[in-house]
Amino acid sequence: MANSDSSTGVPAQRLAFGRRLRALRTRAGMTQTAVAAAAGMDRSFYAEVEASVHSVSVDRIPALAKALGVTPSELFQDMGPDHR
Amino acid sequence: MANSDSSTGVPAQRLAFGRRLRALRTRAGMTQTAVAAAAGMDRSFYAEVEASVHSVSVDRIPALAKALGVTPSELFQDMGPDHR
Repeated sequence: MANSDSSTGVPAQRLAFGRRLRALRTRAGMTQTAVAAAAGMDRSFYAEVEASVHSVSVDRIPALAKALGVTPSELFQDMGPDHR
Repeated sequence: MANSDSSTGVPAQRLAFGRRLRALRTRAGMTQTAVAAAAGMDRSFYAEVEASVHSVSVDRIPALAKALGVTPSELFQDMGPDHR
């Protein structure tokens, strides 16, 4: 992975995605259990995705976004170089 | 998968993502080879993601978006229920 957090080796984009999930979840006032249930995901797997331990497949994005009350596009806002 | 194309069983969101990649690639006038190279992906793997044979991890999204000249957020526009 070209772009990783040097101390943990976790890909920077996975860290950014985990932080984004956490921010949206706390903004929505939801627990990890509630988001995981709404997204049809196992709670501990959801917690590890949020903690950037695991990545997640694009297949899961619509359900995760819906669980957090945002569109898939909003889920990825602030997540990458704005090249314009 | 709750939400799949009944004939192929491929998750609807994976079909939508593949179509989105293809639309952005052709709009950018790029070949699959060029996008795969720019995204640091194997060409045949990229072709299978575009054809919705494979899903792809969120870790890959920033590089794929950059290769296609869009932001990660734009990559997921039109990809899920607009719940507002």
